[in-house]
Amino acid sequence: MTAAVPPQLTGARALIDPVLREAVARLDPATARVAAHHFGWTDTAGGSVPGGKALRPALAVLSARAAGGYAEECSPVAAAVELVHAFSLLHDDIMDGDRTRRHRPAAWTVFGQAHAILAGDALLALAAELLLEHDTPGHLRAARSLSLATRGLIAGQAMDLSFERRQDVTVEEVLRMSMRKTGDLLACAASIGAVAVGGPDDMVFALASFGAEAGLAFQLADDLLGIWGSPETTGKPVRSDLRARKKTLPIVAALTSRTPAGDRLGRLLAWPEPLSDTDLDDAARLVEDAGGRAWAEQEAKHRLDAAERHLTAAGVPIDVREEFCDIARFIASRDH
Amino acid sequence: MTAAVPPQLTGARALIDPVLREAVARLDPATARVAAHHFGWTDTAGGSVPGGKALRPALAVLSARAAGGYAEECSPVAAAVELVHAFSLLHDDIMDGDRTRRHRPAAWTVFGQAHAILAGDALLALAAELLLEHDTPGHLRAARSLSLATRGLIAGQAMDLSFERRQDVTVEEVLRMSMRKTGDLLACAASIGAVAVGGPDDMVFALASFGAEAGLAFQLADDLLGIWGSPETTGKPVRSDLRARKKTLPIVAALTSRTPAGDRLGRLLAWPEPLSDTDLDDAARLVEDAGGRAWAEQEAKHRLDAAERHLTAAGVPIDVREEFCDIARFIASRDH
Repeated sequence: MTAAVPPQLTGARALIDPVLREAVARLDPATARVAAHHFGWTDTAGGSVPGGKALRPALAVLSARAAGGYAEECSPVAAAVELVHAFSLLHDDIMDGDRTRRHRPAAWTVFGQAHAILAGDALLALAAELLLEHDTPGHLRAARSLSLATRGLIAGQAMDLSFERRQDVTVEEVLRMSMRKTGDLLACAASIGAVAVGGPDDMVFALASFGAEAGLAFQLADDLLGIWGSPETTGKPVRSDLRARKKTLPIVAALTSRTPAGDRLGRLLAWPEPLSDTDLDDAARLVEDAGGRAWAEQEAKHRLDAAERHLTAAGVPIDVREEFCDIARFIASRDH
Repeated sequence: MTAAVPPQLTGARALIDPVLREAVARLDPATARVAAHHFGWTDTAGGSVPGGKALRPALAVLSARAAGGYAEECSPVAAAVELVHAFSLLHDDIMDGDRTRRHRPAAWTVFGQAHAILAGDALLALAAELLLEHDTPGHLRAARSLSLATRGLIAGQAMDLSFERRQDVTVEEVLRMSMRKTGDLLACAASIGAVAVGGPDDMVFALASFGAEAGLAFQLADDLLGIWGSPETTGKPVRSDLRARKKTLPIVAALTSRTPAGDRLGRLLAWPEPLSDTDLDDAARLVEDAGGRAWAEQEAKHRLDAAERHLTAAGVPIDVREEFCDIARFIASRDH
């Protein structure tokens, strides 16, 4: 089932696009080119797929509206969140050796590692710069929230890197890692607009909790796509996470299931040679037989329900709440 | 001639050390270990040389005093500047392939590229975080100044990377690059304390100009050390910049001198094989014969004089001015 792209995402993309372009124009030409490639503004390396879903900016805009603000008031914070997201993708692709991003070659494969590291640095610096240009108390608090979230996603990535060398990673550890790597920035995105327009603390807290839970649902959906998603959907080779032997949630759930299928999966993934397409199909089936797929689907559903409960408690106007839920369901849908 | 280490540097190190340690303690353990190695707090990889000269924090403290403030008031800004400096060193060493830093293995050679990239990211995020915790108008302006300087040094590094592939780089281009890569953060360091304590705009501007000129003098001294410095002084192999065929100021001045020695240097550095120790000695002599060394020494002196003139114009109290000049002379001295 393919969920329709909620109009908020298109709207948020249109809102932040000029802000991002103006910000990137401040960079030196070499760094600006890397950023333009990442955001899908240039087709340097073929393809013209637009850059990303503007999920985080859309959440930021909704959170401003939840607190009675207007979309326009929060365009700097929405753009800043997207800049931090872009920074993390540029650096993560280098660290993880991922060669493809959004159906196109990852920036480091086109411009080299050094320029991609530098472009990530520049986008992180620009994010801070954008927020510091607006010296309302709300923007200062927003800058603080974004800076904490940035540190959270860095900590998550550090945990993720450490898992690569370990054979005994537990589901709880991967959940904790995902809460930082994916959850912290989504929690920030889902509340930073409210922060910027001076929303009340309890609403900000509830919106952040919504974002954190939705973030986990998103991660689980992404992990399922990394095993069963089609290349057309993911923009990556089929079975990409199994191929790279990533320790994602459904895979770790299967590996730690104490089932015969889980044990066989462990032996298959420990194989020192690259896995053939048949091996990868077997591995995917073993994740399913060991219950990893069903668990991840169930867990994603629980997280979505929890996210929606936080919204109800937050005193968010009903129309905004519905839009939040549309986005949450969209990002957790299997085929976006 | 070895200049004595000015006491301000030791004082600044003592002032920021607890702030840095508290900030690094917020990081996940893996990232904190990389940071601790970089700052010289651990001897993971042998050696116990302390991390850096605390030059930038010392300038930050002096600039607060120039504007009538106290050192203690500016410990967050002094630490934040040092964090940005550390971020840039961690990433530059990866990009430039430099394996040694301060007499010890560069962080990426000990912990791997991924963890070193991440540690740089984390220190940049911490710098913003430290300033945002203090919401005086001065700290907000200081955060803005630091964020602009960060972008400046990133632009400088991008220019530096682009020079690697070019054979026709001019002295003017290298000067422009150094003004960003080294000058922007030193200009920020030399004025950010005054900014934080609410110093007048014209003093802030004059202090930043002092820092920019002192920064170029520092870069020139560093470039001379990269050719003629002893490994004991530089913590790097002898003739390290010639060995790496870096396009530093004295080297480019020699290459573009239109002298026979300059032309011979060009042919030697274009040699496709690694250069022998004899080649490197020859290359150093050719830089000297082509006038690159004398030019760089003279230029450093001019920059120092210009730096001191800015201070005189800035209305900085005489005792603080003397201390600024001590530091400027120290960093531009040949054997620090």
